[in-house]
Amino acid sequence: MDENLLMSQPAVATRRDPFDRGKFGPQLLTEGEAIRQAVVRARQAGKSVGLVPTMGALHEGHLSLLETARTECDLTVVTIFVNPTQFGPHEDFRQYPRDLERDLAQLGRGGCDIVFAPTNEAMYPAGYTTSVDVGQLGQVLEGEFRPAHFRGVATIVLKLFQLAPADRAYFGRKDYQQTIVVRQMVADLNVPIDIRVCPTIRESDGLAMSSRNVYLSADDRRRALSLSRSLRLAEQLVNEGQRDVAVIRAQMQHEIDAAGGVQVQYLAFVADGTLTPVERIDGPTTIALAATVGKTRLIDNLLVGK
Amino acid sequence: MDENLLMSQPAVATRRDPFDRGKFGPQLLTEGEAIRQAVVRARQAGKSVGLVPTMGALHEGHLSLLETARTECDLTVVTIFVNPTQFGPHEDFRQYPRDLERDLAQLGRGGCDIVFAPTNEAMYPAGYTTSVDVGQLGQVLEGEFRPAHFRGVATIVLKLFQLAPADRAYFGRKDYQQTIVVRQMVADLNVPIDIRVCPTIRESDGLAMSSRNVYLSADDRRRALSLSRSLRLAEQLVNEGQRDVAVIRAQMQHEIDAAGGVQVQYLAFVADGTLTPVERIDGPTTIALAATVGKTRLIDNLLVGK
Repeated sequence: MDENLLMSQPAVATRRDPFDRGKFGPQLLTEGEAIRQAVVRARQAGKSVGLVPTMGALHEGHLSLLETARTECDLTVVTIFVNPTQFGPHEDFRQYPRDLERDLAQLGRGGCDIVFAPTNEAMYPAGYTTSVDVGQLGQVLEGEFRPAHFRGVATIVLKLFQLAPADRAYFGRKDYQQTIVVRQMVADLNVPIDIRVCPTIRESDGLAMSSRNVYLSADDRRRALSLSRSLRLAEQLVNEGQRDVAVIRAQMQHEIDAAGGVQVQYLAFVADGTLTPVERIDGPTTIALAATVGKTRLIDNLLVGK
Repeated sequence: MDENLLMSQPAVATRRDPFDRGKFGPQLLTEGEAIRQAVVRARQAGKSVGLVPTMGALHEGHLSLLETARTECDLTVVTIFVNPTQFGPHEDFRQYPRDLERDLAQLGRGGCDIVFAPTNEAMYPAGYTTSVDVGQLGQVLEGEFRPAHFRGVATIVLKLFQLAPADRAYFGRKDYQQTIVVRQMVADLNVPIDIRVCPTIRESDGLAMSSRNVYLSADDRRRALSLSRSLRLAEQLVNEGQRDVAVIRAQMQHEIDAAGGVQVQYLAFVADGTLTPVERIDGPTTIALAATVGKTRLIDNLLVGK
């Protein structure tokens, strides 16, 4: 390898052979053809491949996806790409945290085999025009506040599934609506990949892990705890027999308001596995919410009524 | 196989083994999982696969695509599906010619290995919501007169490429804009398939072959010849040194008007391989046109200035 090229690589040892697990960090690939060949060859050799799409700035949530992928698949691929098309014009694309070196070190310790980290120019070259639309599913909840978000998500996820045609792809339940959108896209477009959804990972105090938590001041972070607290309160109410969504929602809102400085954008009760609102808890129900805490926008959700 | 199922199959002998070429007609598959397995297994066995997407009502144009696919690939798959999403609300989806039995007989004689003919319900089940948009490329020319057409085309072609992940897919140059849209979609979404574009096939009098030509009365058919005549006239003018698009367009329009009863919808000069209009013939240029003849809408195009 050319010395100048080496210099431009992160200072984390990467390996050439994706099956030489654990000795060095993961193999780092940036070219679409390279990742495709690696995945296709592994599958031709009878190995199962697990894909974990991320935007980097990795935390325990991402690492838990990798861990599950490792238990279910012979080869694990983590993609790191801060996808511009899923950010709105006034959102945090520029300031979104990026630290490839730290991510690679974490993935190395986590036993990841291959990291695919393409450039914006490779994913969206000049003249790029195509997008994937999941219709109404992308317009409600998050979609009301982030109108083009799920179009961007569906498009990049489909692209990654074409570039890295894995057996299974792993997503966190924290992004509940995203899991619904991706499942719908995959089913509608006949993409041959199994979508696996893994539990939300939380800090010890209950805050759902998110790459955006680094934006929170100490004060904001304390206020933000009201979100997961309100979800736990709802769970407790349901467990005590409360079935009326209006009653539960009011108590959640009260809990959040008490923290001060937290603006709820939506507080939705939907039949689990769908985005269909319910008025009563008559079966598995996901409570999904979004709120701003200071300048930071956070989402969280919890399954109740199991 | 269940006798009732057999009864519902067309009365053309089909074969179980796709490699037992020529002895019977093609193998007919209707389930997505069946076509995927057939294609994946063939490729795993080292065979190349060629895909010819059609809406049935096959003519010599389709058969020429199959013929090219056969020369380039070990296994040929022709899909037959009249895709509802590419028809506008007032277009000819219901009356579009359908004759699966005749199509299968033709494909058998043409040496096709597998025919995939799914139902509408299989391709667009209840709750289906996803579509693929190629942006501006789908809004000009045909798109001005058929606003949702290329969204439907891009979506069904992507679905077929997922269900039948072939090495190569074959399209006719007659549908020039469709070839541009499909190439763009495949490049943008990183779909690993090679798009092959084959020449327009014409009747002996010059009329471009189309499944819709059956709609033409004898009188309409005679008038319709003015379209291919106008394209030949343009070619002749270019060969004689004429470079001014305005001059050529005027003479083409004059030729078409002389036939009577032919309404031109557009008469476009674009740099070949693009939909970008040109004012002068300074290189390979595609002249593309659409017109209605009676109640029938026809398209045609010709490459000039090679």
